[in-house]
Amino acid sequence: MPHQPPHMSPEEFRRHGHAAIDWIADYWASLDDLPVRSQAAPGDVRRLLPASAPKAGEPFDALLADLDRVVVPGLTHWQHPRFFAYFPANSSPAAILGDLISSGIGAQGMIWATSPAVTEVEQAVLDWFAEALGLPADFRSDGPGGGVIQDTASTATFSALLAALHRASGGEARRHGLGDAGWRVYGSSQAHSSLVKAAMMAGLGEDAVRSIAVDPETQAIDLAALEAAVEADVEQGLTPVMVHLAAGSTSTGAMDDLVGAGRIARAHGAWVHVDAAWAGVAAVCPEHRAHLAGVESADSFVTNPHKWLLTTFDCSTFWVRDRAALTGALSILPEYLRNAATESGEVVDYRDWHPQLGRRFRAIKLWAVLRTYGLEGLREHVRSGVALAALVADLVRADDRFELVTEPSLSLVVFRLRSGDEQTMAAMEAVNASGEAYLSHTTVEGRAAIRLAVGSWRTTRADVERTWRALQAAADG
Amino acid sequence: MPHQPPHMSPEEFRRHGHAAIDWIADYWASLDDLPVRSQAAPGDVRRLLPASAPKAGEPFDALLADLDRVVVPGLTHWQHPRFFAYFPANSSPAAILGDLISSGIGAQGMIWATSPAVTEVEQAVLDWFAEALGLPADFRSDGPGGGVIQDTASTATFSALLAALHRASGGEARRHGLGDAGWRVYGSSQAHSSLVKAAMMAGLGEDAVRSIAVDPETQAIDLAALEAAVEADVEQGLTPVMVHLAAGSTSTGAMDDLVGAGRIARAHGAWVHVDAAWAGVAAVCPEHRAHLAGVESADSFVTNPHKWLLTTFDCSTFWVRDRAALTGALSILPEYLRNAATESGEVVDYRDWHPQLGRRFRAIKLWAVLRTYGLEGLREHVRSGVALAALVADLVRADDRFELVTEPSLSLVVFRLRSGDEQTMAAMEAVNASGEAYLSHTTVEGRAAIRLAVGSWRTTRADVERTWRALQAAADG
Ligand SMILES: Cc1ncc(COP(=O)(O)O)c(C=O)c1O
Ligand SMILES: Cc1ncc(COP(=O)(O)O)c(C=O)c1O
Repeated sequence: MPHQPPHMSPEEFRRHGHAAIDWIADYWASLDDLPVRSQAAPGDVRRLLPASAPKAGEPFDALLADLDRVVVPGLTHWQHPRFFAYFPANSSPAAILGDLISSGIGAQGMIWATSPAVTEVEQAVLDWFAEALGLPADFRSDGPGGGVIQDTASTATFSALLAALHRASGGEARRHGLGDAGWRVYGSSQAHSSLVKAAMMAGLGEDAVRSIAVDPETQAIDLAALEAAVEADVEQGLTPVMVHLAAGSTSTGAMDDLVGAGRIARAHGAWVHVDAAWAGVAAVCPEHRAHLAGVESADSFVTNPHKWLLTTFDCSTFWVRDRAALTGALSILPEYLRNAATESGEVVDYRDWHPQLGRRFRAIKLWAVLRTYGLEGLREHVRSGVALAALVADLVRADDRFELVTEPSLSLVVFRLRSGDEQTMAAMEAVNASGEAYLSHTTVEGRAAIRLAVGSWRTTRADVERTWRALQAAADG
Repeated sequence: MPHQPPHMSPEEFRRHGHAAIDWIADYWASLDDLPVRSQAAPGDVRRLLPASAPKAGEPFDALLADLDRVVVPGLTHWQHPRFFAYFPANSSPAAILGDLISSGIGAQGMIWATSPAVTEVEQAVLDWFAEALGLPADFRSDGPGGGVIQDTASTATFSALLAALHRASGGEARRHGLGDAGWRVYGSSQAHSSLVKAAMMAGLGEDAVRSIAVDPETQAIDLAALEAAVEADVEQGLTPVMVHLAAGSTSTGAMDDLVGAGRIARAHGAWVHVDAAWAGVAAVCPEHRAHLAGVESADSFVTNPHKWLLTTFDCSTFWVRDRAALTGALSILPEYLRNAATESGEVVDYRDWHPQLGRRFRAIKLWAVLRTYGLEGLREHVRSGVALAALVADLVRADDRFELVTEPSLSLVVFRLRSGDEQTMAAMEAVNASGEAYLSHTTVEGRAAIRLAVGSWRTTRADVERTWRALQAAADG
């Protein structure tokens, strides 16, 4: 029998583990002085790596050293206090340590029986979180619905579509395929691209997605246009299967009217999926729940604690009103996973709630966030982001060269230079290239705009003001 | 502006981080004395948790304390040295620390531009790993193919199917849906359940999957039956789109003939997907590559470092010969992700290689494993598992009450009690209930069998012998 390979001893693990923790603390401390956007050109990182894996093992310290030499210069620093691009993807100390423990436990929670705590802590934490967001009681695990942690909102939206097809087809889709029912899916022109991707993956194709016009002012779905599109399709013998509503669109944070759109969807038997990937978590604050009015009638709802709510990626919380539609679409029971608990019907097997089989103990990190911040701490975090965005909006309004494109939405501000698209893009690019701050762009009604999304727990008023000064300087030329 | 919420200070993060590392080291040290399978009944864990999230934040130590009180008794310990069920899901010290650093960096690698190092380290490490496994040069990133880390083999198989449909439909599927080409997918009766799930999710339905008979002795796909099925379908005007081949089936570790089956698939233009989720990583040892003979002609290949190869879940390595088919099926380019690097064509955007958009820096953990073990260390690890399985097989052969069901496959041994199915299941259940060791079952040619899969780096000869004694005692009574 060959001798055991060189695994780290417990003492080495403690030593290297403490060093890794310290590396992270040092990395965070260094962020303020680093350019936010990586200045690497294509191939710069790769060039620093050898062509092949080493034959003999190297000490862990060599890897730590290479992080500084090879990796850090190639990073755009998402945890930087002046990262305002896309939406934030916060990684908080509590979540990081929660996820570390999940790695140490290394349990697979594909079914209840393979590690009961993985499933039961997840159910408890999703019930806690549903309550914290003011979601309807139907989404809780003690009724016919329930919540699950998905990796991403994209996967959640795809899962919602599969559940919708399952329900609408009476189970035929999973057995015989999509057939020729002419399934149609609806979302506004501002719906996240994951909707079209979901339709492609589900076998419907891009054509099956009806892109519905929005109100030019609010960028929210135009209810009359939605109703007309649905009715025209029905008249042609096509079948509306799902309506996708954005509670916070990616581009401008637009809020679709869930009440009105929900009514139209239900009148035609379509599944209502609410994508609140970014903005949903704001509902931990009672004063930031208006955009979820009407969610009571949704069939499914997703929001990402891994965006604004301090939970290390990946953690996308997804609820359904009727879990039978979801598990009906996705369940598979091979012999080797048969067990008494599943057969008793007393437990939930999360494998049937998403595309994947294997799953890690993701609930620990969300549990760590909910417990160590408490609802009060989370509210303060959200309020701080909203207040800083209001400050940005004031700064925009106070400078004649700039204008708001839409009203600020929670912690997102969309604005532009009055002088035009080219100037707008050039100003943003100048700030991004300087490394001072990092912003991203969009187009609204055909014109370029800059998005500034606050969200990092490291961002202070001073960071916002510094970023604004950089934008002003760039606007000057 | 509200005051900042109570995030951990850098000093607190260090202190709690070191405590979390120590908790893991202590947890591992305690494993040997814990029952492998959780003795929790449904609801036992949930009952120990409060009904709602706390209003005020709690100290992190409270969470650590609850791990021991609430979580550990509800765990089946996948990292236990006598965990022999399913396939191993190893979490090694190096991978855990690599993944911890990924959490600390908290970068999103959905496209190259959002953090170049996330993409370039992943490309480098996948090239290293392809070379280490002896995979064809076509899979490397410097040609038309390339590798990507997927979360799970299930997702990889689903992605392969979407790529196959894209290629076979000449791009029509993503635009207009599946149409009525009568797509058919082939896999042996022993193919992993993720194949049928993939067909369901892709809109083909379960009926589109042809379950091909296996050789009763080897449990490998019967080539004549495959050829007959494909030809019968073609004759009926149906279209073979993908052949799924197992290089190591879940039930018995059966190895499909990739050369022979690949030839049949290619003769009909079908995509060849090789699922080596568990057994592929054994190819780090030159003497354990026989099962991959013929992989040169595969269109895609997946193996899971998160199973046997010491890399904390999730890490499923997936290669394609022609990345254009994959990205053709999955690409989406919304305005807010447009950027110069993507438009130059000089970089790879991994968002288009899998269903999800957001993605973490998963390559760090695999990089940490490849570097700190080196190829030699990994080979020793694999050889140790194979040698221990050979020992189990010898023990089975030496006891008249037991018999091997199939020849041992790498580190998997499948056996039963000669006295019958009930006795076989009862013996396994007795061992599992005792907590001494944990095994799982399967059925082979209609009869119950016990699977013993070696794989944890903590497993010693003494663990195997102790487990065998427990099985012998269970067989007695
Ligand atoms: C509204 C909306 N939905 C979905 C997503 C996709 O999120 P994920 O990466 O979790 O799939 C985003 C990402 O920004 C988003 O803004
Ligand atoms: C052969 C095979 N393929 C696929 C899988 C699924 O793996 P994952 O959980 O990574 O999807 C397994 C799991 O045991 C397997 O044995």
